[in-house]
Amino acid sequence: MSPMPKWWAEGVGTALLLMAVTASGVMGEALAGGNAAVVLLANSLVTGAALYVILSLLGPISGAHLNPLVSLMAWFTKALTTREFFAYVIAQLLGAIAGVWLTHLMFRLPLCQWSTKPRAEPALWLSELIATVILLSLIRLASQRQDPKTPVYLACTVFVGYWATSSTFFVNPAATLARSLTNTFVGIRPIDIAPFIAAQCLALILVLIVGKRWRR
Amino acid sequence: MSPMPKWWAEGVGTALLLMAVTASGVMGEALAGGNAAVVLLANSLVTGAALYVILSLLGPISGAHLNPLVSLMAWFTKALTTREFFAYVIAQLLGAIAGVWLTHLMFRLPLCQWSTKPRAEPALWLSELIATVILLSLIRLASQRQDPKTPVYLACTVFVGYWATSSTFFVNPAATLARSLTNTFVGIRPIDIAPFIAAQCLALILVLIVGKRWRR
Amino acid sequence: MSPMPKWWAEGVGTALLLMAVTASGVMGEALAGGNAAVVLLANSLVTGAALYVILSLLGPISGAHLNPLVSLMAWFTKALTTREFFAYVIAQLLGAIAGVWLTHLMFRLPLCQWSTKPRAEPALWLSELIATVILLSLIRLASQRQDPKTPVYLACTVFVGYWATSSTFFVNPAATLARSLTNTFVGIRPIDIAPFIAAQCLALILVLIVGKRWRR
Amino acid sequence: MSPMPKWWAEGVGTALLLMAVTASGVMGEALAGGNAAVVLLANSLVTGAALYVILSLLGPISGAHLNPLVSLMAWFTKALTTREFFAYVIAQLLGAIAGVWLTHLMFRLPLCQWSTKPRAEPALWLSELIATVILLSLIRLASQRQDPKTPVYLACTVFVGYWATSSTFFVNPAATLARSLTNTFVGIRPIDIAPFIAAQCLALILVLIVGKRWRR
Repeated sequence: MSPMPKWWAEGVGTALLLMAVTASGVMGEALAGGNAAVVLLANSLVTGAALYVILSLLGPISGAHLNPLVSLMAWFTKALTTREFFAYVIAQLLGAIAGVWLTHLMFRLPLCQWSTKPRAEPALWLSELIATVILLSLIRLASQRQDPKTPVYLACTVFVGYWATSSTFFVNPAATLARSLTNTFVGIRPIDIAPFIAAQCLALILVLIVGKRWRR
Repeated sequence: MSPMPKWWAEGVGTALLLMAVTASGVMGEALAGGNAAVVLLANSLVTGAALYVILSLLGPISGAHLNPLVSLMAWFTKALTTREFFAYVIAQLLGAIAGVWLTHLMFRLPLCQWSTKPRAEPALWLSELIATVILLSLIRLASQRQDPKTPVYLACTVFVGYWATSSTFFVNPAATLARSLTNTFVGIRPIDIAPFIAAQCLALILVLIVGKRWRR
Repeated sequence: MSPMPKWWAEGVGTALLLMAVTASGVMGEALAGGNAAVVLLANSLVTGAALYVILSLLGPISGAHLNPLVSLMAWFTKALTTREFFAYVIAQLLGAIAGVWLTHLMFRLPLCQWSTKPRAEPALWLSELIATVILLSLIRLASQRQDPKTPVYLACTVFVGYWATSSTFFVNPAATLARSLTNTFVGIRPIDIAPFIAAQCLALILVLIVGKRWRR
Repeated sequence: MSPMPKWWAEGVGTALLLMAVTASGVMGEALAGGNAAVVLLANSLVTGAALYVILSLLGPISGAHLNPLVSLMAWFTKALTTREFFAYVIAQLLGAIAGVWLTHLMFRLPLCQWSTKPRAEPALWLSELIATVILLSLIRLASQRQDPKTPVYLACTVFVGYWATSSTFFVNPAATLARSLTNTFVGIRPIDIAPFIAAQCLALILVLIVGKRWRR
């Protein structure tokens, strides 16, 4: 149907998502005069709206995973070959970093940065575990039903998640890594990445176990 | 179709709803620097968006009542057996409390709390009566028509209700009870619960009487 | 289909609309600590969302005019009899006042008030003229096409109109009258009503003339 | 179907769009008490909602380009004749200016103004290049698929773009010119127009080249 390669769609989609996430945080902090709730409101609405458009337009090409855990879940259910899985994940990682760096270029910030924002508390890891379980369960349930409104559900869920979890819904190892490269509103200290990604992976394992149990 | 038991869907759905309601209030108060209108804006948008997703995904399983009064109305119209009704209500109650407690865990707040937020005025009881009449009438009307957009209508109505009633649209005995267990933005003093639930029950009676009259 | 009389739907719909408009202004002013932009943001989002639900649910019963000018336009195109037209307008007027008064009861404000908010400038009358032309043209165009998304278009238009016109999109003689009865965010001094309604009526005349010209 | 001439629809649509853009900025600045993030939030939500309604209602008449670059892209793909192309562009330009001037009249501002807001940095030109590439790619992709949700995607994209680019998504030569005529929130100094329009045109060239490559 489309001549755009699937992994290219994953890369572009993840770049656009991370650009929306990062840039709206930068813009919000520059304008909000210290009212972080207004920044988070803009940040969450923008992320949800961007996700909706990206999933709607790139979904028909590559499935629009934009997230290595979603690709891994697809690999487990044999929707992706091993080769495709690695192409997807590499594209997602490079795309996520490109999105952060494009934001830095557009806002005249130093291209290469490390975040200094601490996000290291067991409460945040629990939050990330719950958030990722919710995201992956929703994707699993919606894809089983092939509900055409799935992009809307995911956009709303991410918007809600920014406010309803203490970790603000990272839920994505590629995004987590890329967000350590920006010392702005949405950043995370490199040293705090590992437990976040561990919690996200644990969530995938839980969803796969429960999913298997309920399929029988 | 789905192997997930109905009462399980009620419990999970109510837990997710209360998590969205409570956590977005906590997050808003932590960030808004005293501007309660911004907190309520986030709180109401998040509640509406969460409700939309929960109703859309769990509606096909259990009907997604999430509210003992809605289950009671279903029992009156024989859509639920007595046994199912009690299973639903217990699941809703336990789910609501679980949602509040998960929020406390994620935000490192003491697990068990009592709200100290007074909500005791006849004007609030009137507000709660009007709010519940609106909610139940809408559910009745939409379910008679089997309008597929019902989740959107309910989400919008709850968003509007947070701003257009002085009691901020509790409309749900299970949620009211659970909200007495959190001393945060959305809490209610345990002593103030009874008249709220009484007003909500009165609303159900009014809706059943008027509904019967107009069906003839 | 529904046993609810048409004029009753008009009355209830207009009451709910005015309740949303007035109460969200009261709630916003009580919470926003002087930031009127946040009040207007909540007020406009709530009005749009309320309008969407009311139009969707009551549209199939009475057409959900909620506005004497819309009923007058329907009378001109013979969609309403003279008798129906008067029943609609009376229901809209009484409903609008009831919505304002219910808000006062719910928020413990004096039931009967006169607004002291001045809205008397030729620029506002021009704004009201433009606003009403936009609203009525949209209703005309959408009803000719019988587009099922008309409630969404109207809700978005009213949301936009609150921000994109200096008079904040009154566009409704019944609402204008009722809003003189509340000395809150959305009020208008009784003495300033007449030119507002005159501008709204002038808009209807323009729309009817242009509409006739383009139908030939 | 409709007797309204196509170029007339382009003119009216562009006027309404610029009115929404400009007026919501004026209203926001008047009310927000210096919190520019709240102004941008209102401005971006209003622009998106207005765009959604305008595209939905005028799209079936003229295609609702509202943007000379979109018309130029349509001319390249022979969807417009040369004569139509010029009629569209003139209507868009006059409409854009009319929208700005109507805003000044409604808000009692001097009719003729020049903006003094500097927007001259290579980072902004890069931002404008990226923004226009995104907009035109989306239009191209969505029109190839004839997706009926295209107005929603465009509205969300523009809302996101206000926050996710440093230049706040001008992406439109007619709008850029008209925005130099208003010394308000959304203005741009006349001297800064040229590089903005150059970046936008460069984006069109890139999209046409890549589009051709991927069609083969």
